[in-house]
Amino acid sequence: MPLETPSERRPRLTPAIADVRRAVRDFLEALPASDDAPLVLVGLSGGPDSLALAAAAAFEAPRRGMRAGAVIVDHGLQHDSAAVAARAAGQALDLGLDPVLVRLVQVDAGPGSGGPEAAARNARYAALDAVRRETSSVAVLLGHTLDDQAETVLLGLARGAGASSLHGMAPVSGVFVRPLLGIRRSTTVAACADAGLEPWLDPHNADTAFSRVRVRQAVLPVLESELGPGIAEALARTAEQLREDGDALDHMAEETIEEIVEHAEAGIAISVGALTANPAALRNRIIRHVVLSEFGVSLSRAQTLAAAALVTDWHGQKGVDLPGIRVVRVAGNLVFQAASDI
Amino acid sequence: MPLETPSERRPRLTPAIADVRRAVRDFLEALPASDDAPLVLVGLSGGPDSLALAAAAAFEAPRRGMRAGAVIVDHGLQHDSAAVAARAAGQALDLGLDPVLVRLVQVDAGPGSGGPEAAARNARYAALDAVRRETSSVAVLLGHTLDDQAETVLLGLARGAGASSLHGMAPVSGVFVRPLLGIRRSTTVAACADAGLEPWLDPHNADTAFSRVRVRQAVLPVLESELGPGIAEALARTAEQLREDGDALDHMAEETIEEIVEHAEAGIAISVGALTANPAALRNRIIRHVVLSEFGVSLSRAQTLAAAALVTDWHGQKGVDLPGIRVVRVAGNLVFQAASDI
Repeated sequence: MPLETPSERRPRLTPAIADVRRAVRDFLEALPASDDAPLVLVGLSGGPDSLALAAAAAFEAPRRGMRAGAVIVDHGLQHDSAAVAARAAGQALDLGLDPVLVRLVQVDAGPGSGGPEAAARNARYAALDAVRRETSSVAVLLGHTLDDQAETVLLGLARGAGASSLHGMAPVSGVFVRPLLGIRRSTTVAACADAGLEPWLDPHNADTAFSRVRVRQAVLPVLESELGPGIAEALARTAEQLREDGDALDHMAEETIEEIVEHAEAGIAISVGALTANPAALRNRIIRHVVLSEFGVSLSRAQTLAAAALVTDWHGQKGVDLPGIRVVRVAGNLVFQAASDI
Repeated sequence: MPLETPSERRPRLTPAIADVRRAVRDFLEALPASDDAPLVLVGLSGGPDSLALAAAAAFEAPRRGMRAGAVIVDHGLQHDSAAVAARAAGQALDLGLDPVLVRLVQVDAGPGSGGPEAAARNARYAALDAVRRETSSVAVLLGHTLDDQAETVLLGLARGAGASSLHGMAPVSGVFVRPLLGIRRSTTVAACADAGLEPWLDPHNADTAFSRVRVRQAVLPVLESELGPGIAEALARTAEQLREDGDALDHMAEETIEEIVEHAEAGIAISVGALTANPAALRNRIIRHVVLSEFGVSLSRAQTLAAAALVTDWHGQKGVDLPGIRVVRVAGNLVFQAASDI
């Protein structure tokens, strides 16, 4: 029996592997062309999503004149995290990724960190970006799938923080790209199995202390069984369109703000006429954006509508008091003042 | 113990009754003032939502110089529907509503009706509007609550028909107004109990053959238990903002269409430059609106994006075929043609 050569060890091209590769290829093709074999990094946990992504990047990058490497972030939160990271690094090397870097991070889940999940995420993104800069990589590929996107939308719905909480994750967010947002988790699992790759199964993914795990295990299955299959796809598709809509309106609001907002001695002044002339979607965004950028206060929808009522339902009321600011209607303007200045 | 006088028979002003009355009052105050005691009609099923609404309208309308009547639509779909309608009519008369009209409708759930739920709804709205015209009423008040709105949003999510399916029901839709969209169903139930009113309990509301009933009984409770309370409010609040956003973008798309769409001999032409200059939210709406108004075809998101790719990702492809239409890029225009014309 002849020795295995690298080309014989290559997996068969199954539908799952083809789907993941195509998604990665589409993203690599969208990167600007370059002569010097640019490097893309895969953020690798060793789980099925990022492992399938790593395999696809290892295959596709050289065919596009690019190099693919991997970063494994060890959060140090589980007793065997160093062994998990080492095993993922070994798989990345076997796949032909180069360089393969493991980075140990310190997760500070103390007061002000936003909780352990947010603290771990912030530490992870900071480490990924640091390695990207150190290696002069052009992008970090992340393994989030359509299922992750659907879960994110449902978590956003539950938070009720307005339409923007339904946008889900961006396909491209600065240097971070998510090629698999259109791919089901079952496809990444199949792609790993088809390629003979054994993914790591994170015990956190079974811990129902995490709201994301409860969405995955309890909420989405009930939605599918009661309302029919396809709900994850519907959520992801909806998120994509809502992000598009929100981006357009945010941009228009910013442009309008440059035209109609004035810094007066009494505070920030916006013409009532201009606010009236704009549709509610822009009027409410203008108020929210101005208050956030000038006073660092994030207004709820109810608070925003209370300020807007000085325009839309004015019957002589003097003003409204919101957390940290006062809004008054004076001489054809809405004037926003820090409460401490009054 | 003295005998009850009429004023003592009036219900105590409990928090639930006050909430429903305030919601009705806000809507009546928004109607244009008039000298001739305009009539508003309550669409009454006899269930807790519309019964609480009827009681509040009977109380508030005279205090605003208005009259309140009721319409009961008998769909004839349940064996005791005539008795249910007669009982509701009696309750409306007791509340002091005048006139009180019962209208029997024929529900045609045959082919093309969109199913029995849609057929019943269409028949109901047609009857309500007919009675409104016959009685020269200025508005028909409907009893939909915040819970109905949350259910509508979840049903829209499940349909996955894009962002507009998440808008829920409009607070004002022509002559139909929904004063209770901010009121919980539990509040209307409490308001009826506080007023000594016995609502009818529709057996359809327990029939899990209806997807809305499954949302109410299975989906929302799971969302609340897994993700925390407040999810119904979050869904309703989100729907309100999404409707605002969608309305603004739809309006802008229509305005842009008037500027950039031309009827050419070869079909409908839209300048590629103009489509490029607009954000994706408007570009995709322009394509969808033009195809719908010119060809009566409702494009899915995937189909819309396929047409838009002739602008956003053009690499010389000639065109795309969509159901019933062909889109080609010719001389700086996207040209839409009926497939039958080619």
